[in-house]
Amino acid sequence: MAENTDKRNVLVIHGPNLNMLGIREPDIYGNQTLEEIDAALQAHAERLELHIETFQSNHEGDMVDRIQQAHDSFHGIIINPAAYTHTSIAIRDALSMLNIPVVEVHLSNIYKREPFRRTSMMSAVVSAQISGFGSYGYLLALEGLARML
Amino acid sequence: MAENTDKRNVLVIHGPNLNMLGIREPDIYGNQTLEEIDAALQAHAERLELHIETFQSNHEGDMVDRIQQAHDSFHGIIINPAAYTHTSIAIRDALSMLNIPVVEVHLSNIYKREPFRRTSMMSAVVSAQISGFGSYGYLLALEGLARML
Amino acid sequence: MAENTDKRNVLVIHGPNLNMLGIREPDIYGNQTLEEIDAALQAHAERLELHIETFQSNHEGDMVDRIQQAHDSFHGIIINPAAYTHTSIAIRDALSMLNIPVVEVHLSNIYKREPFRRTSMMSAVVSAQISGFGSYGYLLALEGLARML
Amino acid sequence: MAENTDKRNVLVIHGPNLNMLGIREPDIYGNQTLEEIDAALQAHAERLELHIETFQSNHEGDMVDRIQQAHDSFHGIIINPAAYTHTSIAIRDALSMLNIPVVEVHLSNIYKREPFRRTSMMSAVVSAQISGFGSYGYLLALEGLARML
Amino acid sequence: MAENTDKRNVLVIHGPNLNMLGIREPDIYGNQTLEEIDAALQAHAERLELHIETFQSNHEGDMVDRIQQAHDSFHGIIINPAAYTHTSIAIRDALSMLNIPVVEVHLSNIYKREPFRRTSMMSAVVSAQISGFGSYGYLLALEGLARML
Amino acid sequence: MAENTDKRNVLVIHGPNLNMLGIREPDIYGNQTLEEIDAALQAHAERLELHIETFQSNHEGDMVDRIQQAHDSFHGIIINPAAYTHTSIAIRDALSMLNIPVVEVHLSNIYKREPFRRTSMMSAVVSAQISGFGSYGYLLALEGLARML
Amino acid sequence: MAENTDKRNVLVIHGPNLNMLGIREPDIYGNQTLEEIDAALQAHAERLELHIETFQSNHEGDMVDRIQQAHDSFHGIIINPAAYTHTSIAIRDALSMLNIPVVEVHLSNIYKREPFRRTSMMSAVVSAQISGFGSYGYLLALEGLARML
Amino acid sequence: MAENTDKRNVLVIHGPNLNMLGIREPDIYGNQTLEEIDAALQAHAERLELHIETFQSNHEGDMVDRIQQAHDSFHGIIINPAAYTHTSIAIRDALSMLNIPVVEVHLSNIYKREPFRRTSMMSAVVSAQISGFGSYGYLLALEGLARML
Amino acid sequence: MAENTDKRNVLVIHGPNLNMLGIREPDIYGNQTLEEIDAALQAHAERLELHIETFQSNHEGDMVDRIQQAHDSFHGIIINPAAYTHTSIAIRDALSMLNIPVVEVHLSNIYKREPFRRTSMMSAVVSAQISGFGSYGYLLALEGLARML
Amino acid sequence: MAENTDKRNVLVIHGPNLNMLGIREPDIYGNQTLEEIDAALQAHAERLELHIETFQSNHEGDMVDRIQQAHDSFHGIIINPAAYTHTSIAIRDALSMLNIPVVEVHLSNIYKREPFRRTSMMSAVVSAQISGFGSYGYLLALEGLARML
Amino acid sequence: MAENTDKRNVLVIHGPNLNMLGIREPDIYGNQTLEEIDAALQAHAERLELHIETFQSNHEGDMVDRIQQAHDSFHGIIINPAAYTHTSIAIRDALSMLNIPVVEVHLSNIYKREPFRRTSMMSAVVSAQISGFGSYGYLLALEGLARML
Amino acid sequence: MAENTDKRNVLVIHGPNLNMLGIREPDIYGNQTLEEIDAALQAHAERLELHIETFQSNHEGDMVDRIQQAHDSFHGIIINPAAYTHTSIAIRDALSMLNIPVVEVHLSNIYKREPFRRTSMMSAVVSAQISGFGSYGYLLALEGLARML
Repeated sequence: MAENTDKRNVLVIHGPNLNMLGIREPDIYGNQTLEEIDAALQAHAERLELHIETFQSNHEGDMVDRIQQAHDSFHGIIINPAAYTHTSIAIRDALSMLNIPVVEVHLSNIYKREPFRRTSMMSAVVSAQISGFGSYGYLLALEGLARML
Repeated sequence: MAENTDKRNVLVIHGPNLNMLGIREPDIYGNQTLEEIDAALQAHAERLELHIETFQSNHEGDMVDRIQQAHDSFHGIIINPAAYTHTSIAIRDALSMLNIPVVEVHLSNIYKREPFRRTSMMSAVVSAQISGFGSYGYLLALEGLARML
Repeated sequence: MAENTDKRNVLVIHGPNLNMLGIREPDIYGNQTLEEIDAALQAHAERLELHIETFQSNHEGDMVDRIQQAHDSFHGIIINPAAYTHTSIAIRDALSMLNIPVVEVHLSNIYKREPFRRTSMMSAVVSAQISGFGSYGYLLALEGLARML
Repeated sequence: MAENTDKRNVLVIHGPNLNMLGIREPDIYGNQTLEEIDAALQAHAERLELHIETFQSNHEGDMVDRIQQAHDSFHGIIINPAAYTHTSIAIRDALSMLNIPVVEVHLSNIYKREPFRRTSMMSAVVSAQISGFGSYGYLLALEGLARML
Repeated sequence: MAENTDKRNVLVIHGPNLNMLGIREPDIYGNQTLEEIDAALQAHAERLELHIETFQSNHEGDMVDRIQQAHDSFHGIIINPAAYTHTSIAIRDALSMLNIPVVEVHLSNIYKREPFRRTSMMSAVVSAQISGFGSYGYLLALEGLARML
Repeated sequence: MAENTDKRNVLVIHGPNLNMLGIREPDIYGNQTLEEIDAALQAHAERLELHIETFQSNHEGDMVDRIQQAHDSFHGIIINPAAYTHTSIAIRDALSMLNIPVVEVHLSNIYKREPFRRTSMMSAVVSAQISGFGSYGYLLALEGLARML
Repeated sequence: MAENTDKRNVLVIHGPNLNMLGIREPDIYGNQTLEEIDAALQAHAERLELHIETFQSNHEGDMVDRIQQAHDSFHGIIINPAAYTHTSIAIRDALSMLNIPVVEVHLSNIYKREPFRRTSMMSAVVSAQISGFGSYGYLLALEGLARML
Repeated sequence: MAENTDKRNVLVIHGPNLNMLGIREPDIYGNQTLEEIDAALQAHAERLELHIETFQSNHEGDMVDRIQQAHDSFHGIIINPAAYTHTSIAIRDALSMLNIPVVEVHLSNIYKREPFRRTSMMSAVVSAQISGFGSYGYLLALEGLARML
Repeated sequence: MAENTDKRNVLVIHGPNLNMLGIREPDIYGNQTLEEIDAALQAHAERLELHIETFQSNHEGDMVDRIQQAHDSFHGIIINPAAYTHTSIAIRDALSMLNIPVVEVHLSNIYKREPFRRTSMMSAVVSAQISGFGSYGYLLALEGLARML
Repeated sequence: MAENTDKRNVLVIHGPNLNMLGIREPDIYGNQTLEEIDAALQAHAERLELHIETFQSNHEGDMVDRIQQAHDSFHGIIINPAAYTHTSIAIRDALSMLNIPVVEVHLSNIYKREPFRRTSMMSAVVSAQISGFGSYGYLLALEGLARML
Repeated sequence: MAENTDKRNVLVIHGPNLNMLGIREPDIYGNQTLEEIDAALQAHAERLELHIETFQSNHEGDMVDRIQQAHDSFHGIIINPAAYTHTSIAIRDALSMLNIPVVEVHLSNIYKREPFRRTSMMSAVVSAQISGFGSYGYLLALEGLARML
Repeated sequence: MAENTDKRNVLVIHGPNLNMLGIREPDIYGNQTLEEIDAALQAHAERLELHIETFQSNHEGDMVDRIQQAHDSFHGIIINPAAYTHTSIAIRDALSMLNIPVVEVHLSNIYKREPFRRTSMMSAVVSAQISGFGSYGYLLALEGLARML
């Protein structure tokens, strides 16, 4: 749980299969691993005087648990729900129970992919969305979120 | 596992985010916590001479596990699948493998909400449904189930 | 019109073909006639200190007329719209013009039947729904309604 | 109610607006009035040694009432539900509660008309259908029904 | 039936629940009762040298009966089919059997309401439509109809 | 080709798999073979003073060929297109090029079967339809057709 | 821009191809030209003590420009968006940015035409609609609008 | 046309009705005018060492013209197509003919609005999308685009 | 406007983005510019003793304007509506107001492209269509049109 | 099989019912028989220095057989699949197995006919399409194909 | 017809265009011809002590004929209906009339292809399905079928 | 993790509720338990000189975890995703990140069951599919996979 109370706390949640970034099919997804993305986020957060925690899981239930725990210790959430974007009402409900801004991030432009990836169960309950900037989208999301806090 | 063999055993399963009842947005969902609902259920069960066990999880797989374990120790199930109502074929399959009555409960009238909440994957395999009575619906479900046992 | 002013008045409306309960196809619908169901409701109402009136019609217009007349003499309605459940906007409009709680009852689990029986024109304007408990569902509805009054 | 017990009794039901046959737009619907059609049916019934009663109504509820009354006095039904063909679940339910053969008749070939006239709520619960023969279709229906009795 | 043969006769038909105007929920539907609307129509008809008769029913069959009776005594019809707008093929058929102009009126802009209110079974068989002017729409309809006669 | 010029000539066309009637699954389709049905048709045709020829094929193209050849030697067609009912535009086009009455026959009530059997490519171009009377439907079709000739 | 400040100002907007009224296909659209319709509107406006300006364009963007310019000089709008009725979100957005009443007019009953003409992008943001009265519908719209101002 | 060749040139295109920002309904859209947004973009561009030009039009054709002219003088495009987002294939085709990165910006979270606003004709041909950050989204888009150049 | 009255006059209209042919992505669209296509058309027209005028615009409204002006000076139209093919009811209406033959041309086989390119708003009002022959399709269209004149 | 090796060989395939052209309903389809169309094609082929063979069948399988045989003896195909246009995947597959250009021809503008005629199973695998020019479309197709060879 | 009565007889049916395997586009479909596949099947059948007969046709009707003939001489069927998979109700009906196990085989994974190839008319009446193993799928089907016999 | 490096390693994944095989409803699913199926698979694998590991879980996330771990230690996967077949994009994404062949197995013919079981999220990313052979399908899958390795 976030301990730093002087800074604004931001929770970053990565959904299923994102832990394989940089490991599998680097020619498609790039060489950057999730650890490297998280490190870049930490560095950028410091510049913005934010405290961040990052979390990855392949389990829908774990993501719901983590979002629930955030409700009295974080001021904003950045979430890339990956495969659960399109189907998880449980994550949607967990997010909509919070009263803090949420930014949804997608690495790729999901509108260039299969039809079932073109709808997001999250989009109606988040504050804003960023897609198609690759991992740089997380940094833009952090900036945008900083502006909202 | 249910130990009392003199009484009829009923398993009550609460789905994702129901553990936040009374904690988040009390103006919307009321001040009653899930613990208080479970206590009311226990009290009502005693009046009906039923033994009940209650279970909550945010994990679809845990709900399937729990239903499977019920198959030789319970005589009926009350389930509020919450967000998984609309998408979980796994919970549906687990329920339909049992030969005991199942009552589906929803706190709110789900037909007044978003379109994706208006279909239930469970409805075709349960015995009966109750929705829109708030937490009192659990007690009505218990009475209805007692009648079936 | 309800005359008893000391008790809370409840109107019970049975839709088309429900007058044939217990007469036609008893192996499917049971031996209980609508008169017997109404008697059971009267008995249960007395225990709950409610006054009830029951009404059956095969005519959509008669059901609308009866609901309109209820508006200053009843405190709650229990309705099983039967075949009109799925198509009658007129009954829906009549119900939604009242400011009293309405509970929708179905004898069978309508979600196990033909697709056209799986949508209810009423569901978005009623307070709560009960289905699949057979005629016992009326008694549960009465209890639930008593709680709301 | 059918009194003749030596012959087989058949109920013929005409739905809404059929009472205007021969009166309005004779160039489209022909000059034959419903009375003349009924007379032709009576004559044909005598040849087939059947007793028939005919009934017309513009009211869905009246049609349901009449079908319900048929259940212990008729051996077969011929019905042209006209406009209610496409929407009336109440008439469908009333017909399906009977255990006698039912033949559905349409004067015109309904498949050459507007799309909403191409589905019949009745078709899945009747024994047979005849359409497109004009009023002669009633006589063919009577013959076909005679064969079933 | 219209007796005045010097003036042009117009039949005004109000569908289900319109008899509750001004009685239920005046904050939504206004304080004007159906009687007051009919009186305004009578006054306006006189100015336009028309004879009008008004009729209200909650029964689809009654509305069909009334339209059929109009066929040799009226020169035009104004109809607000209310809830039956969206489902009644029987009323549509009755209207389309007449050879006189028909104007369809809706008090509210039906396109701002639930999706099932956005289609009209009548619209393809009427001459013209007016919606969204409240009760004043009836007077505009009368003027427009006068122009057609 | 029909040679008898004193009588009216009728072509009866049986579609795919109807040659198996009475041979396969007699418990479902009855013991009557197609030869027996054709014989009954011949006998009935004589009573009606009609000349008939019958034809069966499993080949869509053969059915089109046969219909084309009918155009100057037959006065009416009875067709049971069986499986091709739902998909064959070629048979539809061949039928609609003729100017003689066509009656479509189905042994079973196709509306009680799979959804894909509920639409007929033929229905919009035939004069009339009969379904659900079993093989007796062919005789009714012959009578109805005789009436049209 | 409207200069007369003593009267209420109304802007009348005609969409694409309406400038061809009376010129092309007079047998279908009538002999009345748009100039004549505008003159009749001017005359009727004077009787109603309204000031009107009329505008026609085949360009969606020009219609948006004109609506935007109206925002501080007009008290009401009458618009016949013609072909843009069914597709223009830009015109819808421009109209919904204004806080003045808007009446949508269609010369023909659009519900008797091709399916794509049966939906209006405007209908949810306008106050009222009139269709099927031909050019007289503009005058009724002016009267109805006068009532609202 | 962009003249500065030392800096990277970016074209910013604002679609229909965006010229009304800050003028109409400031309580909804904020007090910031499009001029102020453009000024903030200019200031931010200078910090990022980019040259920008801004352009607004209510005309689909003008937007196509402007995009076509960009093809040899700009290195990237930021576009908020507003109402044309959902329907303009012409703008999509113009964008897809360029070989430079394009970022699509929406002020609001379009997924919380009417269903017809939830699909974008542009999304499959742009590089990235940002929505829901209000006017700050333009600055994030500029940063993201700078990263791509 | 066409001045030559000895020859038959043909108007050729090119829709949005076609002015970029040969300039952008020559590997996809070929090296032939629109000017070269127009020159080839002029040469071919002379051989066929036709007079042609060509017109290109990115503006839907300009295309409507141009078609309207054609109504008394041209005997036929060839149109490649490009992106407006799939959405423009205004161009469709303008074309259908003319009584001269119209041929719709597409350079590519639009049925091999995105689904939204597979429907044409024009197809139901034009005389004939040619697609997939590249720019040679214009010459075939001219020949076909010459045959019709 | 095509023997002439000096000229380019083209196979012309006519689908079901086209053999009836000029025989049935000449007022609709014209007086030109298929033989005359084939003769015109032969004459035009000579002018273009092409060798053609023509083939007609009402049998889907025969059309597939003929296309398969074409694979090493023809350089191009012109096909009017008629009724099989909309349903035959077998013909589509046979065509797509060849590596020679294919032109699809329709006599009428199929987009003015029934909805089921508006999709073509062939269109995604052919090179080009021509429709609405009547039999002259075959000659245009031959010219277009000659250009491709 | 199968003569060997000591072994179990299996009929293998190959649908349209499969006779072109190994001949056309070997880079896509492989070099193995249908004759070679049949030989491999014969060899494998011997190992499994089965007698097989193989049959290929491009004609739907021939496939129906062949299946009908199988009904008293074969104990199982392997069928690759190819293009007819998705549309042939006639083949489906012929298969469902038999009481022997049927295995459906597809060379490719049909779910990676066009949407219309993703539904099988056969799948609901066959015993089992194998797809995506190339020609080896036939051998697996034979093994699976052997297990069922 | 697979340790045997001399043999090819295959991972077999069983989805939710498959652990109940042989325990619940043996009359439907057979008496064979999952342990017995796994033992049969082990025996068959030895014959094919493959090493296999088997895994069952009711948790979508666990299945994703297990597939991810397979990426450098297994040469092929057999998966029966059971209830997750129809909804899990997370499992699909995990499978598509691997570069090894995957065979999808279903015990029953899923096309004879409820409509929602007829689509597979996996089918487009697996190599091959087998369904309807009961538990024997796993052994066929192993053989087919062995052939691919």
